Amino acid sequence: MRLLLTGCALFALSLPVLAGPAVTPSSQIETDLLPASLLQISETEAFSRYVILVDKEQRKLSVFERNGEQIQKITEYPADIGKMGGNKTKRDDHKTPEGIYFLQERLSQPKIPFSLYGALAFTTNYPNLFDKRENKTGSGIWLHAIPDSVPLTRGSRGCVVVRNDVIKKLADYIKLGETPILIFDHVNYVSKSEHDKRRQDLSRFVESWRQAWENQDIEKYQTFYDEGFKAPGFNYKSWMSHKKNLKSKYEYIKVHLSQPYIVQHNDQLLVKTLQRYESDKHVDYGVKTIYALKSGDTYKIIREEWAPFSQQEVAAAIARENSMTASSQKTQ
Amino acid sequence: MRLLLTGCALFALSLPVLAGPAVTPSSQIETDLLPASLLQISETEAFSRYVILVDKEQRKLSVFERNGEQIQKITEYPADIGKMGGNKTKRDDHKTPEGIYFLQERLSQPKIPFSLYGALAFTTNYPNLFDKRENKTGSGIWLHAIPDSVPLTRGSRGCVVVRNDVIKKLADYIKLGETPILIFDHVNYVSKSEHDKRRQDLSRFVESWRQAWENQDIEKYQTFYDEGFKAPGFNYKSWMSHKKNLKSKYEYIKVHLSQPYIVQHNDQLLVKTLQRYESDKHVDYGVKTIYALKSGDTYKIIREEWAPFSQQEVAAAIARENSMTASSQKTQ
Repeated sequence: MRLLLTGCALFALSLPVLAGPAVTPSSQIETDLLPASLLQISETEAFSRYVILVDKEQRKLSVFERNGEQIQKITEYPADIGKMGGNKTKRDDHKTPEGIYFLQERLSQPKIPFSLYGALAFTTNYPNLFDKRENKTGSGIWLHAIPDSVPLTRGSRGCVVVRNDVIKKLADYIKLGETPILIFDHVNYVSKSEHDKRRQDLSRFVESWRQAWENQDIEKYQTFYDEGFKAPGFNYKSWMSHKKNLKSKYEYIKVHLSQPYIVQHNDQLLVKTLQRYESDKHVDYGVKTIYALKSGDTYKIIREEWAPFSQQEVAAAIARENSMTASSQKTQ
Repeated sequence: MRLLLTGCALFALSLPVLAGPAVTPSSQIETDLLPASLLQISETEAFSRYVILVDKEQRKLSVFERNGEQIQKITEYPADIGKMGGNKTKRDDHKTPEGIYFLQERLSQPKIPFSLYGALAFTTNYPNLFDKRENKTGSGIWLHAIPDSVPLTRGSRGCVVVRNDVIKKLADYIKLGETPILIFDHVNYVSKSEHDKRRQDLSRFVESWRQAWENQDIEKYQTFYDEGFKAPGFNYKSWMSHKKNLKSKYEYIKVHLSQPYIVQHNDQLLVKTLQRYESDKHVDYGVKTIYALKSGDTYKIIREEWAPFSQQEVAAAIARENSMTASSQKTQ
């Protein structure tokens, strides 16, 4: 079930939490709505506890924060987008890309002029791996401000543009390299129970993949991957034969994952987690990102990225989250 | 004057320096030859003192080290390249790209299988900014090894491939994110005096650009840039009006650069330096990279990158190099 949020309801969502007791029954239902695509913000300290969500149709930018296993909207602002409608595909098409991005670098005066970018700008990683797979071109898609005298309705060259006082507030929510910015043509909202259900479904998907991998059940593990799969240095065939080879080499492997980010955009699914990989011969620690595409009732992994990460931070995140899971299981 | 180095001369170049006295007169001349494209290896500690050079035609990989203002070849090995001839332009064309790249990440077992990549692999930043400007696609261009049983003549999917004992030796020369790997169809060698001349010419070009910038001589400064220039967030027009605006805002600016890398590839020029920028209102420290294209007798800058860098490291590099320049001037 998908509920379309009206402009009026959006306004209700942007009310401060303090207004709780005064909320009318109808907006109470609406404040229960959550974006269908942002399913889980990881609790892992090394990641960002905030996610920025842009609705191109509504020309709104909102900030979500994790709240235990749930998420909640904490603020919302007007935003300008590219002067051309539709999803960006190529350099200089003046369209705002739609998808799952991360804010990378922070730029301010005198590196960038106030007249074009206001007080602050944050770069994004457009084109992301999904985009590169589709041979999308262009760069320089930023989240930035603009002088207060310029209206927010004239359209940008593809960037997401907000007011100066807003970008300064957003800066407090942004962890460089980590904070996601999700840009959608239209954000679908669902009820909390539906949101819970979708999140749990995808958490189970991730857990099944982890188990198939840990159990070195290659036959099952293969079913999680698309035949067009690529990872740096691998295609589907070489990836699977690599895993078979490791199975013959290692007596056992253990794969521990921290609570992941789970984010969707149309058919795209991104899962980002801290990973501890152990075999009888070695241990390593890193950030694992999975890119998958919807395929019938399930998802197939099309890309996989791994980057080394601090042993201390990965071990701490996994230990902390395991102990939380254990204690919550005890109290049930 | 361009001299083509023969296979025999290449062998002579790979002899250890210790062999000096036994060298015949003819190879003595040839060891005086230097690659025309690798003009200067920066003395800046934060950068790499080694550069890897690949000659596709000769199927050779060599390592150069800085030696004061000069450079010298310290070792050379056979290398395999993409099975298709010519310069890479698109994904899966099985060609080895030609240009100025940097080695980024180090991968080893069990992340990558020995059967495909041998003991070690280093990723590159293909496609670089020159390549992106030409809309080149693809990724995963690495420097890696291969099992000793596989010949180095069968051709790769675009990677540069060396023996296992070689990649382990190369690892000692590689500083991740910093060490350049220059891949050329054919490496031209020139005499030391010609090499000196070219290096000095380009050093003067960089110094003139720095002076025009520091003097806020916008008219002169503009002449260093191509009209198709882009920097993150800027085109030629907005870049120049930004500089004019800063001129009206700052009473003075001072631009200090560390001794730069100066590398060419055909019409391309890359200059990489540590930069201290000071105005009457602020100071910042970063890595500046300039991408220029040959235009008649000179070069025009088409891209410019800046990334923040440790104040201590930039200040130390510039102070150290300034004092060296001052003392060498004193002794003249």
